[in-house]
Amino acid sequence: MRLAETAAPVAGPDGAPWVSFDTDPSRYRHWTLAVDGPVATLALATQEDGGLHPGYTLKLNSYDLGVDIELHDAVQRLRFEHPEVRAVVLTSGKDGVFCAGANIRMLAQAPHPFKVNFCKFTNETRNAIEDASVHSGQVWLCAVNGTASGGGYELALACEHILLVDDGASAVSLPEVPLLGVLPGTGGLTRIVDKRGVRRDHADFVCTVAEGVRGARAVAWRLVDELAPRSRLAEAVRARAEELAARSDRPADAAGVPLPPLERNLDGTRLAWPNVTVELDRGARLATFTVRGPREPQPAHLDGIHAAGAAWWPLAVARELDDAILLLRFNELELGTWVLRTEGDPAAVAAVDQALLTHDGDWFVREVVLHLKRTLKRLDLTSRSLVALVEPGSCFTGTLLELALAADRTFMLEGSFDPEGPGGPGTGARVGRGGAPEDRADTPPATLSLTGMNLGPLPAANGLSRLENRFLDRPDELEAASARLGEPLEAAEADALGLVTFTYDDIDWADEVRLALEERASLSPDALTGMEASLRFGGPETIETKVFGRLSAWQNWVFQRPNAAGEEGALRRFGTGTRPNFDPRRV
Amino acid sequence: MRLAETAAPVAGPDGAPWVSFDTDPSRYRHWTLAVDGPVATLALATQEDGGLHPGYTLKLNSYDLGVDIELHDAVQRLRFEHPEVRAVVLTSGKDGVFCAGANIRMLAQAPHPFKVNFCKFTNETRNAIEDASVHSGQVWLCAVNGTASGGGYELALACEHILLVDDGASAVSLPEVPLLGVLPGTGGLTRIVDKRGVRRDHADFVCTVAEGVRGARAVAWRLVDELAPRSRLAEAVRARAEELAARSDRPADAAGVPLPPLERNLDGTRLAWPNVTVELDRGARLATFTVRGPREPQPAHLDGIHAAGAAWWPLAVARELDDAILLLRFNELELGTWVLRTEGDPAAVAAVDQALLTHDGDWFVREVVLHLKRTLKRLDLTSRSLVALVEPGSCFTGTLLELALAADRTFMLEGSFDPEGPGGPGTGARVGRGGAPEDRADTPPATLSLTGMNLGPLPAANGLSRLENRFLDRPDELEAASARLGEPLEAAEADALGLVTFTYDDIDWADEVRLALEERASLSPDALTGMEASLRFGGPETIETKVFGRLSAWQNWVFQRPNAAGEEGALRRFGTGTRPNFDPRRV
Repeated sequence: MRLAETAAPVAGPDGAPWVSFDTDPSRYRHWTLAVDGPVATLALATQEDGGLHPGYTLKLNSYDLGVDIELHDAVQRLRFEHPEVRAVVLTSGKDGVFCAGANIRMLAQAPHPFKVNFCKFTNETRNAIEDASVHSGQVWLCAVNGTASGGGYELALACEHILLVDDGASAVSLPEVPLLGVLPGTGGLTRIVDKRGVRRDHADFVCTVAEGVRGARAVAWRLVDELAPRSRLAEAVRARAEELAARSDRPADAAGVPLPPLERNLDGTRLAWPNVTVELDRGARLATFTVRGPREPQPAHLDGIHAAGAAWWPLAVARELDDAILLLRFNELELGTWVLRTEGDPAAVAAVDQALLTHDGDWFVREVVLHLKRTLKRLDLTSRSLVALVEPGSCFTGTLLELALAADRTFMLEGSFDPEGPGGPGTGARVGRGGAPEDRADTPPATLSLTGMNLGPLPAANGLSRLENRFLDRPDELEAASARLGEPLEAAEADALGLVTFTYDDIDWADEVRLALEERASLSPDALTGMEASLRFGGPETIETKVFGRLSAWQNWVFQRPNAAGEEGALRRFGTGTRPNFDPRRV
Repeated sequence: MRLAETAAPVAGPDGAPWVSFDTDPSRYRHWTLAVDGPVATLALATQEDGGLHPGYTLKLNSYDLGVDIELHDAVQRLRFEHPEVRAVVLTSGKDGVFCAGANIRMLAQAPHPFKVNFCKFTNETRNAIEDASVHSGQVWLCAVNGTASGGGYELALACEHILLVDDGASAVSLPEVPLLGVLPGTGGLTRIVDKRGVRRDHADFVCTVAEGVRGARAVAWRLVDELAPRSRLAEAVRARAEELAARSDRPADAAGVPLPPLERNLDGTRLAWPNVTVELDRGARLATFTVRGPREPQPAHLDGIHAAGAAWWPLAVARELDDAILLLRFNELELGTWVLRTEGDPAAVAAVDQALLTHDGDWFVREVVLHLKRTLKRLDLTSRSLVALVEPGSCFTGTLLELALAADRTFMLEGSFDPEGPGGPGTGARVGRGGAPEDRADTPPATLSLTGMNLGPLPAANGLSRLENRFLDRPDELEAASARLGEPLEAAEADALGLVTFTYDDIDWADEVRLALEERASLSPDALTGMEASLRFGGPETIETKVFGRLSAWQNWVFQRPNAAGEEGALRRFGTGTRPNFDPRRV
């Protein structure tokens, strides 16, 4: 899909227009954000001709990726820039309609990978809303002041409290199955049953009836929490928002931390941020991420941390890495393997982790940790093979060790590079090496190191730390690794503790890494996606893993089927006046 | 796919050849079953030209549905016919190969719905193996006496203990991703991580390396439990089998219960067993199941129960219903809605339930309950809409109430039918009515009734009873319903307790039921499949729900993709000498 002229895409590294995620409230086309003391109101009134791609209009407050990019931005800014906001009211700025969900013509014309990426991003944003309610003391409530259908109701489901206007007309509905032949794929099927406890036969009814449910039945069936007549809706919302805000621990008088535009340079085969670079190798279908540890001393005390704001290293890394992940997910579909590297001083990373842990009661530090958590979850959920390379000069410590723990495989060099060895320039060993071997031969052997950040504050989507996820059903190994907190672990020890997959010395390193990456690139991209989605999340399930594992997998299947996406399918036939023609076989 | 001449299909109701699941050890083509005291040995030596469909040969002990139908039969018979068997050794009867998994040419030529049904059935059989190990005191162990690849290794993974021959060549492998571009879809991805605790990076390696892992690494990585040189394998297997057998509570001297062929009549639009009938309505795409309660007095004491054997009503119902589900799943893909009815005396069903509960320590009674459990799970996992109709003359009590609790929706008639009412013949009200209204007008109003069988012995795949599954996050409602154990509940009470979805009186019944069924038939079959798979299993997840929800959904997605199933896809190109041509985009 080409981008619309309204979309203001960024120029990608080779000049092609890229979807970007850059925005701020002054540029919002579709949302207005108003802050009134502890209560913020975020209202959706889509600019109908402001779609990200040509070919559809955003009628009835339907959304596309562009609308959701603004929502994502608002969620982030509310957390960082508005410490005083304790409750967020999500509502519609249009009369008589709350939100009609994802734009159907957009979905019908979108290629399969875009649909999947779009749904993943919208799901992540709804998870971020829930994360704010549960962990940030910024509780979201939804004022459904008109009909909320499909993704519109799913947006409401992401909020902790749903008020529905009781006007005899406004309903909540999930009409995807009856109208479009696809699933409510933004968490609706999971959240009604698992979050709200809607009885499964009621859920079955709701999901097959295009007009949805309104009024008293919507409350009785737990689809919404509260009704209010139109004349009293604003008052009821305000009262509920103030009640929820009163429970928050956010400070009333703190200064917000502005989130300035990211410094980013996309050029040729290199994407560069101050702390993150990504080298693109389209021939080998590789993207090599290098995350840099702090290069300047970082503040250890709260006043310095607040003064640093968005420049504080852990927040800068979270924002830059998040941006890199999103840009590559949407714009570089063929780079199937992401190599994860780090560079820097392990002690500097450990010091930052110490500050994150020491000041975890501070609202801003908490937000930084939560942002790191969400960014790492986004990495876990990216349908690319993840391979971490641990080499001399790296700093896989604590928060950055999570990158290795998120990887499908981690390779670690034993000892140092030999400048005369096989890893010389032109031998293929450049992959994953940050400098020519001769520059790095005197660098001491790589180490890994655990900090308290690996033991809980950064859980994966299944609620486990990545260390627990690695040692499922292996309590002794989990304990043995955890006991080495703070120690620099060279390759042999890291291997013995189960923290890396394979170790190689300099003689084998270049060939082994190259072979592993070439082999990976030769495999079916689809099979890898399904395999990684299955292996990355063992153990317990949560609403998040159900949404991304079960629900999304089914939705992706449905999105492929002629009954939805075919010429005569429901998605293509919607609004044409011609009924879809279904293959009646049940699968 | 047409059936091979070797397959001896049954004639379906309109004469077309149907896949059937009828077999017994005297007719096995692929397996030999030998019983030696407490240890049985089930050995696979496929008859290469004995495939169920033409177009492939079962080389290297690869399997098709026909092979798995025999395995399924053996699992069932071992439980009922061999109370003395306490350990089952699963092995290969061919030299140098254990099992190469599902036959690739069969998969490549199979239409999508068959592939999905085939995988579901094989998964259910592997679950039945685990169920025997955990609940029947009949522990399965696997003697991997040659290479076990793909579905071959997944078969081993279903066993509680895996011995691998240590001959420098035999390996366990999951080569689906590298060789075929599909997933190990018979539980492999889930079981290595969640059942065996294989570390996720090791699992990632295993699943991308066609040759697999052998010897000491296979043990160190927990892929197998034990190694033995070829010369000592038989001895090691016997020793381990006897050790596992010693822990069993199965009786040494009980008489087995033979499972005779089912009495079944397929004729026109009617499938009939003694206790189950299914009426096919191809125009409306409906199948109406009627399960009959006991028509003759059933034994209350163990001697009578054992004497009745396979004729005992609950076992007969379990076997017949299981057969009906399987036949319709494979042979009637277009009948998208299954209407579930019962007929009979509620008190007679309650009396049988009482016997099942009273004698739950008896090995045979236990097996009957476990068979009912597996059959109901098969119903839950069937990709058809399930609608239960509770009418006068029905017996939705205890075990049969599970049918209504398994349904996506349950409708219950308030009061009795009026012979002069709108439900007369020819008005469309015949759907779901077992007789002409005039025959049934004097039948008292329908009731539902809970027995102890609803409170635990028949859990769904997620480990919860269907009652718990209905009242997720609603402990008060669960308690209120449970407290009415044994009481006949008429429509108003059943509705108030949340046990049915909607109730209608005779004036509305026919129209409401007809409209609901017509509406269902108009919806996208694929969207319904994904929706029902999401709504039926709220709450906790188990290996079973992960296999059927997450893993199967991803596999079904992959099975649709050109990278697997297309002309240039890996599944089609396998063995041709030409490499597949992949669309490199990651989704």
